[in-house]
Amino acid sequence: MARIDFPEEVQLLVSHLKRLPGIGPKSAERIAVWLIGQDGDFSYDLAKVIGLSADMVQMCPVCGFFQSSQTGCQLCNDDQRDRSLICVVEQATDVLPLERTGAFRGSYHCLGGRIAPLDGISPEDLRISQLLERVNEGEVKEIILGVGSDVEGEATANYLAELLTEKSPGVAVTRLAQGLPAGGGLDHADELTLYRALDGRRRI
Amino acid sequence: MARIDFPEEVQLLVSHLKRLPGIGPKSAERIAVWLIGQDGDFSYDLAKVIGLSADMVQMCPVCGFFQSSQTGCQLCNDDQRDRSLICVVEQATDVLPLERTGAFRGSYHCLGGRIAPLDGISPEDLRISQLLERVNEGEVKEIILGVGSDVEGEATANYLAELLTEKSPGVAVTRLAQGLPAGGGLDHADELTLYRALDGRRRI
Repeated sequence: MARIDFPEEVQLLVSHLKRLPGIGPKSAERIAVWLIGQDGDFSYDLAKVIGLSADMVQMCPVCGFFQSSQTGCQLCNDDQRDRSLICVVEQATDVLPLERTGAFRGSYHCLGGRIAPLDGISPEDLRISQLLERVNEGEVKEIILGVGSDVEGEATANYLAELLTEKSPGVAVTRLAQGLPAGGGLDHADELTLYRALDGRRRI
Repeated sequence: MARIDFPEEVQLLVSHLKRLPGIGPKSAERIAVWLIGQDGDFSYDLAKVIGLSADMVQMCPVCGFFQSSQTGCQLCNDDQRDRSLICVVEQATDVLPLERTGAFRGSYHCLGGRIAPLDGISPEDLRISQLLERVNEGEVKEIILGVGSDVEGEATANYLAELLTEKSPGVAVTRLAQGLPAGGGLDHADELTLYRALDGRRRI
């Protein structure tokens, strides 16, 4: 009896899908089965859209946000942004939530990740030299470290704070406040959050 | 100040990725960012492979497993399989784990899902009429219901068992055994599993 496996094309599809972030072998199989069940139309659309993005979208060499070949970088082209203020974030996707607050009118710098030795990501893998270049142009007055509040985020913030204080002593380096999330009672906050909320308490 | 959003191509990519099963808005953004960071090569490969699958792979009209335009259905073309025995599974992906046991030499029938009224999946959406056709050809002696042991799986098994007993009284309908999984202690088994293990106990 022949050994049964998926047709070669399906195996190839699964092996490619598995490489996407957050997609394991099971999810890859599930997506492949679903795609093949869609009568082709959606698959062709998806393939076209992936190709289009690869053709048209790059990372902005300055700020690290997405830029389209057609429109350029929306952030860097926006003359009304305060260029003396840079918010440093981990990923390009972190820009939109900050923008939605409406509270920030400065510019951004996307690192492309965070320092995570266990995952083999060291400072050299991040867009830190590009950040220093922007700071060296002299216009920057404050850098807000808008990285996450987990271990890797803390490590990245500490590394950047030290580096920036050393290289550009005139630039203020700040960090997003940590404390109770909006709408959360004390009973839902973990100890570290409470500790940081106490530590960062403000006079009202 | 201009409202910032991802370039149009990225928005289109995210909206397509979101439609894949198990991929939410956050995962879709994460995958899009990752794809754009891959310098295009992987994106083109992925797009090609998705297109290739859509071109070359279909569902076998008889058993519901994948078939390639080049090789046809491996399961239906395999002359050494016992055609008097059909194992009914939910998805094409369920065939491989059963094959790996090496304990089954019959044929398969993939339903393409399971009865789940809450998700809007009724018996008409499954490949049940194709199963009845295969049974009506007269060669089948036993149908093993190899569907899951969750609520929807049970509902599907019960529905099929009733239908098959009514339409083809001569065909034996069996169900995969339920009980303790291999290597698990009693303390890790939930009550329903233990109940079913007791209920299905066998003399040794």
